[in-house]
Amino acid sequence: MRETRLDTARIRAARRVIDPVFLDTPLYRCEALEPGLGCAVSIKLETANPVRSFKARGTEVVASLLVDQDSRAVVCASAGNLGQALAWSGRGRGLDVTVVASRFATTAKLDRIRALGATLELVDGDHEVARERAAAIARRDGIRLVEDSLDIETCEGAATIGLELVDATPSFDAVLIALGGGALATGVGHVVKAMAPEVEVICVQPLGAPALTHSWHRRRVVTTDSTDTIADGVAGRYPIPAVLDDLLLVADDAVLVQEASIIAGMRMLLDHAGLVVEPSAALGVAAILEDRDRFAGRHVVTILCGSNVDVDAYHRWVGAAGINGS
Amino acid sequence: MRETRLDTARIRAARRVIDPVFLDTPLYRCEALEPGLGCAVSIKLETANPVRSFKARGTEVVASLLVDQDSRAVVCASAGNLGQALAWSGRGRGLDVTVVASRFATTAKLDRIRALGATLELVDGDHEVARERAAAIARRDGIRLVEDSLDIETCEGAATIGLELVDATPSFDAVLIALGGGALATGVGHVVKAMAPEVEVICVQPLGAPALTHSWHRRRVVTTDSTDTIADGVAGRYPIPAVLDDLLLVADDAVLVQEASIIAGMRMLLDHAGLVVEPSAALGVAAILEDRDRFAGRHVVTILCGSNVDVDAYHRWVGAAGINGS
Repeated sequence: MRETRLDTARIRAARRVIDPVFLDTPLYRCEALEPGLGCAVSIKLETANPVRSFKARGTEVVASLLVDQDSRAVVCASAGNLGQALAWSGRGRGLDVTVVASRFATTAKLDRIRALGATLELVDGDHEVARERAAAIARRDGIRLVEDSLDIETCEGAATIGLELVDATPSFDAVLIALGGGALATGVGHVVKAMAPEVEVICVQPLGAPALTHSWHRRRVVTTDSTDTIADGVAGRYPIPAVLDDLLLVADDAVLVQEASIIAGMRMLLDHAGLVVEPSAALGVAAILEDRDRFAGRHVVTILCGSNVDVDAYHRWVGAAGINGS
Repeated sequence: MRETRLDTARIRAARRVIDPVFLDTPLYRCEALEPGLGCAVSIKLETANPVRSFKARGTEVVASLLVDQDSRAVVCASAGNLGQALAWSGRGRGLDVTVVASRFATTAKLDRIRALGATLELVDGDHEVARERAAAIARRDGIRLVEDSLDIETCEGAATIGLELVDATPSFDAVLIALGGGALATGVGHVVKAMAPEVEVICVQPLGAPALTHSWHRRRVVTTDSTDTIADGVAGRYPIPAVLDDLLLVADDAVLVQEASIIAGMRMLLDHAGLVVEPSAALGVAAILEDRDRFAGRHVVTILCGSNVDVDAYHRWVGAAGINGS
C-alpha cells in the first residue's frame, strides 16, 4: 500500500515505552453477544486499566519522549479521555500537565483529570474551542501541545492495539473501530493493512458527528457546524488533513450509526457481556446492529475503547429497558 | 510453612495447559475507588474472558488431564461458574460435559452452560444436593467427577492467579480473596505464602454462608443447615476437610461481611471503576468497607472473581441508589 505517516517498526518501539498495564489487553470471543448480532464477535477490551481508555497508549509515548527531551510541561485539549491519560502519564514522569476542556464535557472525566493532578482549564464552547485555547497556552508558555490524532505518537500508541490484534489466533474477517480524530483508526488500520491486509477495516462514527466519515467518502476535508451525539469521545468537527490522508489509505469503509443503535449497543454489552462502556465504545456493536447482513457468518472484532461515563447518564441510557433484556 | 496439598512447580506447569485467554488478566491500581475505601486498591480482574470468571483456569487443567487419559466425559455440580468453565474447556477438547445444578441457581449462568453445549441436569435443592447427584452420575457412568476445591487441579488453576500477583510491582500489603469452596483462597494463598509471605492473605465470606470461615476460626469442620446470601458463587454448607487443612496453613484471617456491604461493594465497583461484578466478586471491597481502619494507608489487592449476574437482579441491587452516587 502507499505509505501512511506511520511506521510499523516505530510502533513496535512504542510498545517498549508504554507502561505494561496498558498493553496486551483482553481479547476474547464473546458468544453471548452472538445470537443478537448474527456473527462471531470478539472483544478487544481497552477499559481495564487506570484511565479506563486506550488513550494512555499514546500519552505514554508522548510523555516518554518529553522526558527524553528534558521537557517539564505539556498541554492538550481533551473531551476527557486524552486528558486523563496525559495526566496519568505526565504525573508518573514529573511533568506539569494542563488539560483544556469544554465545560460541557462529561463530569466524571473532568473529575478524574483533576484527581490525577493535572491543571484543568474549562472553556465555553465545544472541543474545537478547547483546541484553540490549548494551542494558545502552548505558544504562550513555550510548551508542547499534544494534538490527538495529528501528533504521530498518539497514532503510534493506538497502533499498538493493532499489533495485538494481528497476533491473534484465529484471525478476524473485519475490525470495527470507533472513529473520532482518527488516531485509533489510522493507527490500528495501518498495522492491520500492513500485516493482515485481508482483514476489513471499518470505521464507525455517530450520525451526529460525521465530519471525518463524510471526509473519507468525499476524499477531501468536510467540516460541520456542530455535533449532536452522546458519544463525546468522538465528537469532532474539523478533520485533520494529514489524518484523512492516512485514513484514505487504511480504511476499507467508514459508516455512520444512529444514537439509538449506540444505546442498544451499550445495553447489549452490559446485558450479555457484563461490560460497562462509554458510547464511543459501542459504535462497533451499533454498526453490526444496523447492517446484520453485511456481517452475517463472519468473525468481527470490535475495540471497546473506553468506559468513562457519568453514572447517572449511563443509568438513563441503559436503565429500565435493560431490566427486561434487549 | 507446613505443606499444603499444592506445589508451586505444579502450579507453574498448570499455566502451560491453560488457554492464554484466561491468563495474565488485568491487574491495576484503581484510584477512583480509593477516596471511598481509605486505602490503595488494586484490582485483579477475572471477568474479561469467555466464561466471565476465574474458574476456567482450573477446568482447563482438568480437561487437559482428561484428554491425556483418553477420557470422553466429565461431570460436575455447579452453581454456575464452574459449570460454564467446564463446559467451555470440555467443548474445546471434545469431552461430553454434564453439569448438575440447583434449579434455584442464577438463570443467566444456567443459560450459558446450555449455550456452551453441556448437558444440564437440574435438581430440587441447593448446591449440596447437586453435589450428591453429580457423584451418583459419575459412579453410574464411570466418568470423572470434578469436585471444586477438593480436586487439586481446581486449586492449581486458581493458584495461577497467585503467580501473577506475586510478580507484580509494586507488591501489596494484603490480598482479599472471596471464600467459597476454598480453591481460590488455598490456591492463591499457597503461592502468596510461598513466594511473598509478608503479604496478608484475608479470606472473605458472606455472613449468610459462613461455614468455611467458622471452620477456619475453630480449626475444625463446621457445617450449616442453610445459606442465605446473594453471593451464590460462594454459598456452600459442607466445608471439605482437606481444603480446611490447607486454608489453615495459608490464610492469615477469614472474615464475614453483611449483604448490604456486598451490594455497596458492587455499586462502588460500578460507579467508580465501571465494572460489573457478581456478588462474590464484591466481597473484598465489602470487607474494606466494614473495617476501614484495618486497611487505612495500606495497599490492598482484591480479586474480582466473576461477573455472571442475572441482569434484572443486578439492576435491583445497584439500581436506583447507584444513580445518586454512593
